[in-house]
Amino acid sequence: MKTVSLNRSHGGVQGVYTHTSSACNCDMTFSVFSPPQADTQSCPVLYYLSGLTCTHANVTEKGEFRQIAAELGLIIVCPDTSPRGDNVPDDEQYYFGQAAGYYLDATEAPYATHYNMYSYVTGELPELVSQNFNADMDRQSVFGHSMGGHGAMVLALRNPGKYKSVSAFAPMCAPSQIEWGEYAFSRFLGTNRETWQAYDTVALINSGSRLPELLVDVGTADQFLESGIRPGLLKKACDETGIDLTLRMQDGYDHSYYFISTFMNDHLAWHAQRLGLTD
Amino acid sequence: MKTVSLNRSHGGVQGVYTHTSSACNCDMTFSVFSPPQADTQSCPVLYYLSGLTCTHANVTEKGEFRQIAAELGLIIVCPDTSPRGDNVPDDEQYYFGQAAGYYLDATEAPYATHYNMYSYVTGELPELVSQNFNADMDRQSVFGHSMGGHGAMVLALRNPGKYKSVSAFAPMCAPSQIEWGEYAFSRFLGTNRETWQAYDTVALINSGSRLPELLVDVGTADQFLESGIRPGLLKKACDETGIDLTLRMQDGYDHSYYFISTFMNDHLAWHAQRLGLTD
Repeated sequence: MKTVSLNRSHGGVQGVYTHTSSACNCDMTFSVFSPPQADTQSCPVLYYLSGLTCTHANVTEKGEFRQIAAELGLIIVCPDTSPRGDNVPDDEQYYFGQAAGYYLDATEAPYATHYNMYSYVTGELPELVSQNFNADMDRQSVFGHSMGGHGAMVLALRNPGKYKSVSAFAPMCAPSQIEWGEYAFSRFLGTNRETWQAYDTVALINSGSRLPELLVDVGTADQFLESGIRPGLLKKACDETGIDLTLRMQDGYDHSYYFISTFMNDHLAWHAQRLGLTD
Repeated sequence: MKTVSLNRSHGGVQGVYTHTSSACNCDMTFSVFSPPQADTQSCPVLYYLSGLTCTHANVTEKGEFRQIAAELGLIIVCPDTSPRGDNVPDDEQYYFGQAAGYYLDATEAPYATHYNMYSYVTGELPELVSQNFNADMDRQSVFGHSMGGHGAMVLALRNPGKYKSVSAFAPMCAPSQIEWGEYAFSRFLGTNRETWQAYDTVALINSGSRLPELLVDVGTADQFLESGIRPGLLKKACDETGIDLTLRMQDGYDHSYYFISTFMNDHLAWHAQRLGLTD
């Protein structure tokens, strides 16, 4: 792991790092905020998964998470959204290929060689974090935005007990049922839609996967409300299966980081409580 | 004035606007955050002046000012750092020309036609703000970073009573005495150094200009501490003239927005008190 940059911020350290990923077969960049508490004790880890078109940098610069993370004592880990590089297959659509890895392990050529973000964020990245930061790996949680909200919910649904809590900003709730997801999943996973269910929150819930609880914020002015997010499908699935979903429709908010940063404090406080940092 | 974008954030509205500037003879872009209180009452205005290489966008995205501005009820206005456009003279040095207007009115050709940021930020921009926002123009304050910290201090020193308070992050304290400023001032104002004093904080103080008080944060790891900031010269000038300077050397912080955002809350709270929003 190589250090790209270190900046003192809000009493802690905001770092950016690169390493050669075995899961993705390319160099990967990610950011970690270490709160001041990590100087003297191991701290719980909260992963933030970003949305389409983003790298680690967008939320690191615009997410406004450091002040409260420093107060609470949370390590915040922000990976990239896909493998990267000249050798990594890409696409002309912004919703597929580089910056659009959907946090899945691809099975189809030519994508399967590099597009293994599921293995990366559930396995390789936590291992790196555990080796290089003062992280309490028994206390991990995950959240994300849009495609990253999809990723966060899928990670939590598929790995019961691994994450103490999960939340999302404007998540893609049912990628199998939207144009973006159909385009991406058919190329990453093939045309048999049965295989898509392993990476679709609503499908996972409907086929028996469970979460104890879930916090989701969605803006009422989100430009992708029906084309990408479909919170109604998530609500229906949770209602029918008894999942304790807190779905908050936020009046006038859109899909941007101005929305995310507004509710960042709420999400970090929610995770901190479930990670045992607060009562 | 045309609206470029509006995003709901922290209960208020973050807007970006353009207009044709008569002071700068070009189109200018700026951002305004209107807190929720502005829906029902006029609110005081705090101008943020940015540093070299920046536009309005850097601090708007990375400054982390909206949460506390919304709590306090402050309108935050962030202008660009220079005139812009194909017709505006530029330079190959990042510290002169476009994105480096030094908040002065140029007197020398070919710069004097466009480079009138002093008139812009003290006159034309406040007029626009007063016409288009629910702003209490009897309560204005100013702060900024680096070249913008220089601008904020010069504005306050040259206009006693116009601004209720002034503060700065890592300001250029004595531009006449550093390479950046010598390069820029000699081109904007000519080679007679006497004329430079009107835009140099330390020179203004030493020639009799006064401020009731001043808050300045500087990082000890600032890469421009001696080449650009020179806080010692400011301290000496304030000590010798009885200006109540609070100069905080912040351990381990650099020149970046990670530094600015860390102390943003302190600065807004400080201004809010002097603008009569808090006791």
